[in-house]
Amino acid sequence: MTSTEHHLDEAVDRALRGPARDRNPRVGCVLVDPAGQVVGAGHHAGAGSPHAEVAALASAGDLASGATAYVTLEPCNHHGRTGPCARALRDAGVVRVVYAVPDPTAQAGGGAAWLRAHGIPVERCAHPAAEALVSDWARARTLGRPHVTWKIASTLDGRVAAADGSSRWITSAEARQDAHRLRSRVDAVVVGTGTALADDPALTARTPDGAAAPVQPVRVVVGLRDLPPGARLGLGPDPALHLRTRDPHEVLAALTARGVHSVLLEGGPTLAGAFWRAGCVDEVLVYLAPALLGAGASAVPDLGVRTIDDCVRLELAEVRPVGPDLRLRLVPGRLAPSTPPGHPAVHALVPPVPSSEED
Amino acid sequence: MTSTEHHLDEAVDRALRGPARDRNPRVGCVLVDPAGQVVGAGHHAGAGSPHAEVAALASAGDLASGATAYVTLEPCNHHGRTGPCARALRDAGVVRVVYAVPDPTAQAGGGAAWLRAHGIPVERCAHPAAEALVSDWARARTLGRPHVTWKIASTLDGRVAAADGSSRWITSAEARQDAHRLRSRVDAVVVGTGTALADDPALTARTPDGAAAPVQPVRVVVGLRDLPPGARLGLGPDPALHLRTRDPHEVLAALTARGVHSVLLEGGPTLAGAFWRAGCVDEVLVYLAPALLGAGASAVPDLGVRTIDDCVRLELAEVRPVGPDLRLRLVPGRLAPSTPPGHPAVHALVPPVPSSEED
Ligand SMILES: NC(=O)c1ccc[n+]([C@@H]2O[C@H](COP(=O)([O-])OP(=O)(O)OC[C@H]3O[C@@H](n4cnc5c(N)ncnc54)[C@H](OP(=O)(O)O)[C@@H]3O)[C@@H](O)[C@H]2O)c1
Ligand SMILES: NC(=O)c1ccc[n+]([C@@H]2O[C@H](COP(=O)([O-])OP(=O)(O)OC[C@H]3O[C@@H](n4cnc5c(N)ncnc54)[C@H](OP(=O)(O)O)[C@@H]3O)[C@@H](O)[C@H]2O)c1
Repeated sequence: MTSTEHHLDEAVDRALRGPARDRNPRVGCVLVDPAGQVVGAGHHAGAGSPHAEVAALASAGDLASGATAYVTLEPCNHHGRTGPCARALRDAGVVRVVYAVPDPTAQAGGGAAWLRAHGIPVERCAHPAAEALVSDWARARTLGRPHVTWKIASTLDGRVAAADGSSRWITSAEARQDAHRLRSRVDAVVVGTGTALADDPALTARTPDGAAAPVQPVRVVVGLRDLPPGARLGLGPDPALHLRTRDPHEVLAALTARGVHSVLLEGGPTLAGAFWRAGCVDEVLVYLAPALLGAGASAVPDLGVRTIDDCVRLELAEVRPVGPDLRLRLVPGRLAPSTPPGHPAVHALVPPVPSSEED
Repeated sequence: MTSTEHHLDEAVDRALRGPARDRNPRVGCVLVDPAGQVVGAGHHAGAGSPHAEVAALASAGDLASGATAYVTLEPCNHHGRTGPCARALRDAGVVRVVYAVPDPTAQAGGGAAWLRAHGIPVERCAHPAAEALVSDWARARTLGRPHVTWKIASTLDGRVAAADGSSRWITSAEARQDAHRLRSRVDAVVVGTGTALADDPALTARTPDGAAAPVQPVRVVVGLRDLPPGARLGLGPDPALHLRTRDPHEVLAALTARGVHSVLLEGGPTLAGAFWRAGCVDEVLVYLAPALLGAGASAVPDLGVRTIDDCVRLELAEVRPVGPDLRLRLVPGRLAPSTPPGHPAVHALVPPVPSSEED
């Protein structure tokens, strides 16, 4: 590991002290003197508080002069709630800047160029952990709203319940565990009042042994009806957010304001259909159980498609076995310009078994 | 290649002169003298004609004495329409027998043991091409009827047509080509009169350039109604067989009598449902288009399942990308004792692409 990588790692560790869910991404900065000593470090503690660079400069005091700054994100060049960090670094006597991720916002970008124009050498060094800190935030910024994944768990024939309405469990324990892992990686999990009233779900992220995962999503229920007292979504130290609306855009705006960059839409069909028709679905994740029901409620609601030419075409981005089930990740064609053409990525977790039928 | 493999290859080539569709499997035999010269060869030309060994002995005449017999299938030991081949080989002075596939039928098996008991050395040498000659026949014998594959082409949400009934094309050109390859590998393709009347399909196997494949399945339509004059199933040198019944067992018995060992059930839902309920489906092959319809006819008919506990559980035996679609091969759990537990075989035709969402 180079010393640059090492110091960027330190900056990432610092960044992780910031809030997981915020309107701003987590950013960390360390200041290192010519002898290789860390003389200052800081992180961004959330919208309204100083940027990581400013916090690091404050912790270094006079020692900042002559130091190199390692920052997970390109220093900003704008007057937001705090002054531009590029200028603050220059003013403090920092002699070199290394950053991992270019600032994707037109508004704030340009800090590296500004520093170079003012005679300070700037290097970019790609760093996956630093990219992971901002990817959700950057994606949401590009979309102008949180990224939405519509999760479906269905049989091969597209059903989520049997003819009599019974539905637990269609997919395997492994698939449900996988879905819990997913919950702990998104900022919010959303259902409609229909699902809340029918299933009384907790929507918490749990580990395979049933304990609460260390990071929990914001739980959200959408719809005009009240939930009964004692509903599991109302329980716990952080009761679910009840958004009394039927407008997906309103839901996403309310979540954006709460620092949510990614949403897992867990249904039911009515709410998911509303999100789909509003153009608010970026990804469809299907847990497909190798089972047939032949009758019962459909996983996919009426999408307004009348004739085959209007069929909603998606692109298979990933196929992965999860226990006995399959997990398919799909993206609407138009939103996936970077998906490689041809075959979907298929994860072979076991070597292919030759079939007796075909080569 | 050893000389044994070479002579078994010759025996396979001989076997292929027999009829592709017959109540008996294709069998070939070559007789080789001690100098390595082929002195006789024969094949089985179909039920009622001599077995391959007998044909080979006839072609060799006196030269059979002292020769080694290479046979694709273990010589029989029973008095069927022809005498037992084991005895015929011994009587002709054959001094050694090499065969590829043990005779799986209790009735005819035992030829190798009989020969050994009569002082003639017998070797078995596994040979994939020889196994392929008998596998369909052996499987049908075990089942007591042809092996039935139910083919479905549907959207992700299990639909085969849009709300207005339009349905062409749901799956890709690549998937349809794959299905044509499949047709040329089965003995019969079966649809109900509903599909015949609605779609007027030809049900021929075609190559990617649209030409007729060299081997064509028997085309079969099932149901009481007449087809109109000019229906494509009635055209061609080999018009489709119209079985005027609604009983799947009757259909399969009629096909067995015509030497059919494998059937591709191409629908529609009504006929497939009848086969399913009669316990006459051995494999389900689903071409899944990454598309959603949200409404329209279901691929899978009512299977008599009312509640989730009666859900039909299958086992995913194979997952394969076919163009933009997925092809899933599934077997009813109870019929698949040899399927390895755990993950299905997933054919990775492209290297897995790391997902930005999950590791
Ligand atoms: N297998 C799966 O993947 C899965 C996942 C989730 C649920 N489910 C099943 O789905 C069933 C519930 O289905 P559902 O469709 O009723 O549930 P839902 O979509 O969760 O809730 C529907 C309710 O949401 C409210 N709503 C919010 N926005 C809306 C809009 N734009 N348009 C219309 N309504 C809106 C309405 O209630 P208000 O009157 O309160 O506004 C509506 O009745 C349950 O049986 C559950 O088990 C299955
Ligand atoms: N996407 C796909 O995979 C796929 C494949 C095939 C068809 N399809 C679509 O399916 C639709 C046709 O559906 P379908 O269900 O009507 O077609 P079908 O199953 O091919 O034919 C149904 C007819 O078969 C006869 N039949 C034979 N055995 C029967 C039994 N045991 N019980 C009841 N009827 C029996 C009946 O006609 P009689 O009165 O003549 O006896 C019945 O009306 C078409 O629109 C076609 O495009 C889709």
